[in-house]
Amino acid sequence: MGNNRFEIESLGSASIDNTIRKEDLPRFTSESDRIAFDPHLEGLKKYFSSGETPEGFEIAGPRQKIFFSPTRTKVAVVTCGGLCPGLNAVIRGIVMELWHRYGCRNIVGIPFGYQGLSAGAETELIELTPERVKNIHEEGGTILGSSRGSPPVSEMVDVLEKYNINILFTLGGDGTMRGANEIWQEIKKRGHKIAVVGIPKTIDNDILYVKRSFGFESAVERASEAVYAANAESEGVMNGIGLVRLMGRDSGFIAATVTLSTGRVNFCLIPEIKFRLDGPGGLLELLKARLEKRHHAVIVVAEGAGQDLCQHQNSEHDASGNIKFGDVGHFLKERIACYFKEIGMPISLKYIDPSYIIRANPPNTADKLLCARFAQNAVHAAMAGKTAMLIGYWHGQMTHVPFSAVIGQKQKINPSGEMYFNIIETTGQPAKIGV
Amino acid sequence: MGNNRFEIESLGSASIDNTIRKEDLPRFTSESDRIAFDPHLEGLKKYFSSGETPEGFEIAGPRQKIFFSPTRTKVAVVTCGGLCPGLNAVIRGIVMELWHRYGCRNIVGIPFGYQGLSAGAETELIELTPERVKNIHEEGGTILGSSRGSPPVSEMVDVLEKYNINILFTLGGDGTMRGANEIWQEIKKRGHKIAVVGIPKTIDNDILYVKRSFGFESAVERASEAVYAANAESEGVMNGIGLVRLMGRDSGFIAATVTLSTGRVNFCLIPEIKFRLDGPGGLLELLKARLEKRHHAVIVVAEGAGQDLCQHQNSEHDASGNIKFGDVGHFLKERIACYFKEIGMPISLKYIDPSYIIRANPPNTADKLLCARFAQNAVHAAMAGKTAMLIGYWHGQMTHVPFSAVIGQKQKINPSGEMYFNIIETTGQPAKIGV
Amino acid sequence: MGNNRFEIESLGSASIDNTIRKEDLPRFTSESDRIAFDPHLEGLKKYFSSGETPEGFEIAGPRQKIFFSPTRTKVAVVTCGGLCPGLNAVIRGIVMELWHRYGCRNIVGIPFGYQGLSAGAETELIELTPERVKNIHEEGGTILGSSRGSPPVSEMVDVLEKYNINILFTLGGDGTMRGANEIWQEIKKRGHKIAVVGIPKTIDNDILYVKRSFGFESAVERASEAVYAANAESEGVMNGIGLVRLMGRDSGFIAATVTLSTGRVNFCLIPEIKFRLDGPGGLLELLKARLEKRHHAVIVVAEGAGQDLCQHQNSEHDASGNIKFGDVGHFLKERIACYFKEIGMPISLKYIDPSYIIRANPPNTADKLLCARFAQNAVHAAMAGKTAMLIGYWHGQMTHVPFSAVIGQKQKINPSGEMYFNIIETTGQPAKIGV
Amino acid sequence: MGNNRFEIESLGSASIDNTIRKEDLPRFTSESDRIAFDPHLEGLKKYFSSGETPEGFEIAGPRQKIFFSPTRTKVAVVTCGGLCPGLNAVIRGIVMELWHRYGCRNIVGIPFGYQGLSAGAETELIELTPERVKNIHEEGGTILGSSRGSPPVSEMVDVLEKYNINILFTLGGDGTMRGANEIWQEIKKRGHKIAVVGIPKTIDNDILYVKRSFGFESAVERASEAVYAANAESEGVMNGIGLVRLMGRDSGFIAATVTLSTGRVNFCLIPEIKFRLDGPGGLLELLKARLEKRHHAVIVVAEGAGQDLCQHQNSEHDASGNIKFGDVGHFLKERIACYFKEIGMPISLKYIDPSYIIRANPPNTADKLLCARFAQNAVHAAMAGKTAMLIGYWHGQMTHVPFSAVIGQKQKINPSGEMYFNIIETTGQPAKIGV
Repeated sequence: MGNNRFEIESLGSASIDNTIRKEDLPRFTSESDRIAFDPHLEGLKKYFSSGETPEGFEIAGPRQKIFFSPTRTKVAVVTCGGLCPGLNAVIRGIVMELWHRYGCRNIVGIPFGYQGLSAGAETELIELTPERVKNIHEEGGTILGSSRGSPPVSEMVDVLEKYNINILFTLGGDGTMRGANEIWQEIKKRGHKIAVVGIPKTIDNDILYVKRSFGFESAVERASEAVYAANAESEGVMNGIGLVRLMGRDSGFIAATVTLSTGRVNFCLIPEIKFRLDGPGGLLELLKARLEKRHHAVIVVAEGAGQDLCQHQNSEHDASGNIKFGDVGHFLKERIACYFKEIGMPISLKYIDPSYIIRANPPNTADKLLCARFAQNAVHAAMAGKTAMLIGYWHGQMTHVPFSAVIGQKQKINPSGEMYFNIIETTGQPAKIGV
Repeated sequence: MGNNRFEIESLGSASIDNTIRKEDLPRFTSESDRIAFDPHLEGLKKYFSSGETPEGFEIAGPRQKIFFSPTRTKVAVVTCGGLCPGLNAVIRGIVMELWHRYGCRNIVGIPFGYQGLSAGAETELIELTPERVKNIHEEGGTILGSSRGSPPVSEMVDVLEKYNINILFTLGGDGTMRGANEIWQEIKKRGHKIAVVGIPKTIDNDILYVKRSFGFESAVERASEAVYAANAESEGVMNGIGLVRLMGRDSGFIAATVTLSTGRVNFCLIPEIKFRLDGPGGLLELLKARLEKRHHAVIVVAEGAGQDLCQHQNSEHDASGNIKFGDVGHFLKERIACYFKEIGMPISLKYIDPSYIIRANPPNTADKLLCARFAQNAVHAAMAGKTAMLIGYWHGQMTHVPFSAVIGQKQKINPSGEMYFNIIETTGQPAKIGV
Repeated sequence: MGNNRFEIESLGSASIDNTIRKEDLPRFTSESDRIAFDPHLEGLKKYFSSGETPEGFEIAGPRQKIFFSPTRTKVAVVTCGGLCPGLNAVIRGIVMELWHRYGCRNIVGIPFGYQGLSAGAETELIELTPERVKNIHEEGGTILGSSRGSPPVSEMVDVLEKYNINILFTLGGDGTMRGANEIWQEIKKRGHKIAVVGIPKTIDNDILYVKRSFGFESAVERASEAVYAANAESEGVMNGIGLVRLMGRDSGFIAATVTLSTGRVNFCLIPEIKFRLDGPGGLLELLKARLEKRHHAVIVVAEGAGQDLCQHQNSEHDASGNIKFGDVGHFLKERIACYFKEIGMPISLKYIDPSYIIRANPPNTADKLLCARFAQNAVHAAMAGKTAMLIGYWHGQMTHVPFSAVIGQKQKINPSGEMYFNIIETTGQPAKIGV
Repeated sequence: MGNNRFEIESLGSASIDNTIRKEDLPRFTSESDRIAFDPHLEGLKKYFSSGETPEGFEIAGPRQKIFFSPTRTKVAVVTCGGLCPGLNAVIRGIVMELWHRYGCRNIVGIPFGYQGLSAGAETELIELTPERVKNIHEEGGTILGSSRGSPPVSEMVDVLEKYNINILFTLGGDGTMRGANEIWQEIKKRGHKIAVVGIPKTIDNDILYVKRSFGFESAVERASEAVYAANAESEGVMNGIGLVRLMGRDSGFIAATVTLSTGRVNFCLIPEIKFRLDGPGGLLELLKARLEKRHHAVIVVAEGAGQDLCQHQNSEHDASGNIKFGDVGHFLKERIACYFKEIGMPISLKYIDPSYIIRANPPNTADKLLCARFAQNAVHAAMAGKTAMLIGYWHGQMTHVPFSAVIGQKQKINPSGEMYFNIIETTGQPAKIGV
């Protein structure tokens, strides 16, 4: 398919028969088939009628021929960045698939994220077996530990070589995938045959080409409890305001979904849509009008919303390379308090930040299943010698997506689309708040 | 698009401006675009290169022009068949969308399913307002009541006419959609302009072209508690067997999903795959081997599994026209008890049937959102004058699907596909049990 | 205190200093103090004024002097009878207390209940350490396994001797305590110094002198979900009846508590109060009247209710020596169906039996705490050389209760007391149903 | 009983027959009986042998003779202070008992706490009927609204008179009971016959003579989720510290109970026990040692702990008259961060404050039952003409407690008792931290 931006790299020709038995799986996944990136027929017609092939993703699944000889392959798993419901379920899925389906017996966990790949790392590799992982899918957190940031890439590859790792599975978000790509580039430069396959972990649901990331629904489920609490608090006093800060650095999916499913939110502020506090039609004026009419209000704000209002002059970065955000929750809390004090209207504001409770939670049943599917397909891809890719989820299908296609970009809520339209309706807020 | 089997009928030309404001929704959904039924590029290429247009679904969403004048339109909602988490959330969504978005003020609920459309129905129509429905999405059941079966179709249409209903929303499964189609055919015969739009309700997730039906994930979440209980019971005694019967008449999605997400099931029996009890490689022999090795076992069986083994000679039908099934749960319970008694191996079998607890449950957060989307898009379709259709869910997109395309068929687990393959792996059961 | 029926037996004089440090616990529990059985002052006055000492319980807690030398003591734990939320939490509590507080290093679990003490038991003793038990309080079931019935008592004592057990903790109900008492009598006869201390396990909350048994509140929490489901099902159809069968052989505490806390039950049937089905004022007539007025009804029945109506002629016993009960749930289901068929009134009855889901559940937080307290105080008692006793819970205080005081009797709901009075009010049912 | 500090005031002689029927309740509660304050027999013996009557509480329950004529009685309910799970369940219980048992038809809610009794209150009284309250026990918050502080007492009594209120039920904590007592003193001074009966509301469980207050167990259940999250976060990174701030101004019951039931806490800091941060044996040193050994730690701190360390010089008071506390959570967070920065040991601290999520939660099943019992017995007391009292809970019995006995004092954890002893054991922390 030539210069398709979704083309997947490979370590070489896969010539070993897959260990999966014909009676268990009659059909292997074809190497050549693709799933349309955009399945709308009008667009597809234009492509085909002009002789082009539309963009599409490689379809994930077990291949008839594999690259690695399972019994001689050593596999490492690393979890990076913040917690997300389902990390342990993915680890379990990888181990179970490698062990029971392919017969790998040499699986290790890298302790504490990429930092565990530093030359001087004190903690030892963690041996992973079915016995060790069989029940971990029911627990929050990650049994491997995590971290932000990473040692120099050459150091990490040195360590991978030192331990004779053949496959590295990286669980993480955008920053982690950037790191994984750098690791792969270094491996490639050295001419080694180490597969690097990512599994997208983003509680914000903001990785491109991953329609629904694992842990997202579990996060939303728990976040909705905070909204119900905010609602009860706001109704429990005269002019009560419940303010809930939720995760969502670049994308407001959690805030939006909770707003739509609870039906208890009056203002939903997300990173994709700018808003103003002051002046006519600004948030403060709208809030005042709401209180005068109904005596209580619930505001949900994603952590990345209103950054133009609250961010510090000299932006710092955290160890993962993310810009340190201004705390929009505390900013709103203080500005709202100030405003109502000035206009002499007594309010009672309750501020709720449930982030850690949400992200350290075990996955729900639907997410456990999704974790298993991400894990299984990552294993199929790596065993087939695919590399520099992560597992995507598109049109309900697991896919292969090259690192290069996702790094540095984010999946976002479309301000002209159905979801934001529904937020406007559910909340009653105007499409534009003071802007 | 000519004779496309997914073509949607319409009451006539939609000539009224949609009441949705441009500033809230910049883009209406195009009437002409379609989403590919099968998004695989190889197949699509074949179609287009031979000059054909591949099959595709109309995309759901608000139309620029609508058929009904909102303030003069009377809308009825009816819920049919068994309970499913989210029924109330759909009712709420329909009322909220009609009221707030289109300005309809005349919305009624038909009490107790199609039976509420009988000439002699004693219960009165239920007035539906935002005040009445605002919190019902958090409750299980249906505030309208439901029933199985229906009065004669002409009688139902008489009643719809008597009450001057312009739009009828029917929430139900395959049987309900068949009924809705018959109602529509009668309306059409009489030359009336009543839109009949269905919202697919199936806890089994077995309606065609609806990848994930509302309530399904909530059902799976609750069903998994029964599996954990069965597991604890089975491990709590020597040779303990936990047997869980779950919903799933024609399709084993609940049983399969619970099996995959809990990882605690040793035998998963679904309607799509026949099995044998007796003889070499039969379930009883496999169960014996499992107990000898591990001293406990968990079996999950969908209600429609093994019907060739347990169904009564003269099959009866229930009021919805469904064949009355043999009770495979009790059948297995007795046959297993018998077998181990005969071979003199003491066991302790605990039988769990959580069906009503599962289906009467409130929806989880993800399902509440899905309910809202089904409801909103059903309203958009009906207001635009679409009829004889239900809302589908395909590639993450809400779609229009004609009744004719789904009636009498079922969405099922593919015995050669990924899901069944994963069941074999997770359980350790063979692909074929005694057959 | 002489012939007090609550006098506790002891293995001999406790002469070893307790290993608990003074700085951790300034005050040990006095051996001589008692807590009044009946704290009403009028009654107490009568006792004291006539020179008698009122009955009272020994107070549980750590003693300054203990009987067993911790490092030389071997301790066994056994779990008997049906599952109950919190069994694992009690096991954990015992191990943690013995290990960390007293320094015992020799703790074993007997597999599969008293059956694990049979001469020919195939399964080995289970070594119990803090590492093994640290997280088990969050799991349902019992890691030791359980069983009903027991081998001959002499055989069990032989096994205890063979393994050099010094302390035996038995977790179970009335039958288990009877067995524990027989084991103790045999030990005593043989002149051995083995302490036998019971921890009362009864999901029905029916053990005398144990106001609230562990697992009871967790059971009620989960049982209430079945009642909400029954309510949704009953309201979801015309003349819907939701019938829920709950645990409660001799005592209706679960049924009663669920009735009072949900407020959704119309008829609550418990073993303590007889009722009639037929005739004027009988259940069927009352149910008919309810349906005619409100069109739906919820019935909760404890498994031991109505046994005079449904029990089989020749009562069988199960392995624990309990009379095999007639299945009052199915009995009611059939009799109700029959009655309404005869009088030509269509109903829709949904029958829910959530027993296994309830009892295999993990404990809630309040129960986890209670489990810890039972466990800790059982260890204190046994280390002090107390025997032939169980831990009671009275006036919020952990106590010592001799086996002899509880065996063969049950804690029940007082038909003239507050709880039953409140059931009448909450349900609206008459104090007497057809009797 | 003369000058017993637990003597209950009364509006006058109760001469009206109770409306409760003999067939529903065979035995009314005796006016003369008392339940021993301290049920230990040694102490009781001393009292009786010296001719004294030991202190005891009046027993709550329905009286044979009542003071108010139900059909002529107007009843008001007010909820004050912060939210607590179960407020709505108590309101429901009061209304149901008054309506169904006594036949009162005139019940109102005071909106927004004592502020709703101000002369110029704009919001109207809320009519309370069974229809209005029947399902509110399942919701968090309070349908009446609440507030802190109060208008002048004479103004409040003016309003009560203006509305012809005969009975005032006040739901609140220590401050609310102080207010209720002042209202009562003013009523008495004016020679009116208005009963003032309190229902103790304290999520901290800190009201004297109320062993377990409603909402406490629900709070603990939810709080434990924060501890599990903190644990997952702390284990998820190298040298992770999870710091959870919980409610508990004067008493650490929530923090202590969560510590004991989860078994995941390493340091539990409560108001009853002072601690030091710095120096040998101080918290920081202990924390460092813990991290060096285990690489992660969980700290739970009650909001009132360490106030000697973090409170501001010039203590402010809130509207309820409570001293404004220094924020010990943020204080610890900053001091810990500082300390480890200074000693050059990298840590990752996650701070969780789940307070609003905990207190706005619906009650669990056990609490719903407790709410009903508090409510019912408050109604019995008030109808019998009792006043200036609240409902207590002692030895599992509902009691009457005069306002005077509880105001200005708190129920606390005994530093020499079982609970703190168990905390030491469970956490492994020393009995004294740096003091």
